[in-house]
Amino acid sequence: MPRATGYAATSPTTPLGPFTFERRAPGPDDVALDILYCGVCHSDLHTVRNEWGNTLYPSVPGHEIVGRVTAVGERVDRFRVGDLAGVGCMVDSCQRCRPCAQGLEQYCENGFTGTYNGPEQKTEANTYGGYSDSIVVRQSFVLRISHGQEALPAVAPLLCAGITTYSPLRQWQVGPGHKVGIVGLGGLGHMGVKIAAAMGAHVVLFTTSANKRDDALRLGAREVVVSRNESGMAAHAGSFDFILDTVAAPHDLDALIQLLKLDGTLTLVGAPSSPHPSPGVFGLIMKRRRLAGSLIGGIRETQEMLDFCAAHGIVSDIEMIRMDRIEAAYERMVRGDVKYRFVVDMATLAA
Amino acid sequence: MPRATGYAATSPTTPLGPFTFERRAPGPDDVALDILYCGVCHSDLHTVRNEWGNTLYPSVPGHEIVGRVTAVGERVDRFRVGDLAGVGCMVDSCQRCRPCAQGLEQYCENGFTGTYNGPEQKTEANTYGGYSDSIVVRQSFVLRISHGQEALPAVAPLLCAGITTYSPLRQWQVGPGHKVGIVGLGGLGHMGVKIAAAMGAHVVLFTTSANKRDDALRLGAREVVVSRNESGMAAHAGSFDFILDTVAAPHDLDALIQLLKLDGTLTLVGAPSSPHPSPGVFGLIMKRRRLAGSLIGGIRETQEMLDFCAAHGIVSDIEMIRMDRIEAAYERMVRGDVKYRFVVDMATLAA
Repeated sequence: MPRATGYAATSPTTPLGPFTFERRAPGPDDVALDILYCGVCHSDLHTVRNEWGNTLYPSVPGHEIVGRVTAVGERVDRFRVGDLAGVGCMVDSCQRCRPCAQGLEQYCENGFTGTYNGPEQKTEANTYGGYSDSIVVRQSFVLRISHGQEALPAVAPLLCAGITTYSPLRQWQVGPGHKVGIVGLGGLGHMGVKIAAAMGAHVVLFTTSANKRDDALRLGAREVVVSRNESGMAAHAGSFDFILDTVAAPHDLDALIQLLKLDGTLTLVGAPSSPHPSPGVFGLIMKRRRLAGSLIGGIRETQEMLDFCAAHGIVSDIEMIRMDRIEAAYERMVRGDVKYRFVVDMATLAA
Repeated sequence: MPRATGYAATSPTTPLGPFTFERRAPGPDDVALDILYCGVCHSDLHTVRNEWGNTLYPSVPGHEIVGRVTAVGERVDRFRVGDLAGVGCMVDSCQRCRPCAQGLEQYCENGFTGTYNGPEQKTEANTYGGYSDSIVVRQSFVLRISHGQEALPAVAPLLCAGITTYSPLRQWQVGPGHKVGIVGLGGLGHMGVKIAAAMGAHVVLFTTSANKRDDALRLGAREVVVSRNESGMAAHAGSFDFILDTVAAPHDLDALIQLLKLDGTLTLVGAPSSPHPSPGVFGLIMKRRRLAGSLIGGIRETQEMLDFCAAHGIVSDIEMIRMDRIEAAYERMVRGDVKYRFVVDMATLAA
């Protein structure tokens, strides 16, 4: 079995460090990749520190993977050795249930297999993610990449942050003539601004930090509202078709719901560890508004998102780091001190 | 100006009693009705006791009105003297905004005029509702009734309880092959069960009262689940297309959200005076579920609902009362001791 080198945490309190393990030999439907770049998602941090209470150790996180194909199984027809390819948050699902049949593997009724922290469909073994030099994934969970070579590091975060924002924007049919709010300008929010703007919407960025104004406008927002400014918020009451809320910390949803017009939707993609204050029922009833959730996106839609981003010249705004700087990057990420996504240059793993 | 006799409260603590007042003379677009029957809605009680803090006194409640046309203005073309007609929760709106143009007067951006507790569009005067012998309403807010004469008392509650449940069931396209939950078997809930069943859905009634089982089945439910029974609830996890929640008291929404399948919606039509416990974000994210609200229904849709109910032989289950028994009826309504709607026989007003 092929040997792989990566970075792993062995307990909630152990810093990540070098880890050698085995990948499976590519089967007939598998694609093997050398990993070039891997984005750093907040979920990585939650997992290595066991903040969701379900971590399998050793834990090799990373699910924003861009790499180059090194081997393909005999039934693989969509990839050839030397191709660029991506892997996102999922590496498998049951492929039998209704959501899987609809291309919505993220809602697989039998539970999808995460790119890290498993469990694998048959063996229930742990899976090891993208903080490593290689990975083996079944073809149907591997994405084609049509961005140019020089963009590759900044493509990596599209595989999670990109699809997590693209999917609800598509689901709720955001387009020209729509007024769309994006709440929070972090890894997810900055992708939401770029993608919603490229879809043709009038994008308004809501932030608690007035100093993010210039960046938000540069990224594609037409207006910036500091959400603590009550009169600034009130000026937008009842005017939004759709609001995408990327903030994971508990906050006041009513203030956002009040901004929606008739039949408007507020979709949450951030999951706080303690609940938001309870939203009032009147705010939902009085304009037939909706509060919804959304989880990453299916494989078909992830491919659509990558192609959309390539066509519109969209990548993530990133800061590249060495693998051995991951703990420092986590600390900065917790403080919100990153514009807007760290990406590990996997060449530094061997260095 | 025509004199009217009704029942009014003059303060939050005064029992309703006889009250004489003036209706406007019918204008060119107006329809005048003699009121035959008026349903008793929980909103009536909230209003006369000023429980929403906005009551104008004297307060003549009642917005589930069935009557007979006694006069029509010169531009009235849809009603003739002698016709049966209905009036629901609204008697006017701005007629200019986008929701009004869409036939969604209940979401009028300038505020619709309630059948009682006003304010009128131009004068901002109070409006007096259906606990009275007559009413004058502009034609565009008057409904045609095609039920037979003998059904009239039981038609009255369709004008609020009927449309409040019909509208979200239609909006979310409930039909054959759908599994639909109705939460609560009261005035609203019993209409929801009947209407959803007539739409062809497999209806499951959720109740805290095991003794409502036989009634729910008789009304059209195929299954009854006692919502305090955790294993009974768990058996339905992830299986509902749509759930209509008619319960106004604060309760656990997560227990209902968990029952929805992928892309399922929980719609609230009851507004509690204190908030529900905050629903968890994971429940929304994990199956892309939605939590929504809905407010009565537009005039066009109310007519559609009345025609649908007439075609399907649907009326409310009622208990007829004399006007002078209204306070006792309120007390029983507060206790949930009514199957399932009180209707005032307005002939008793003069008796």
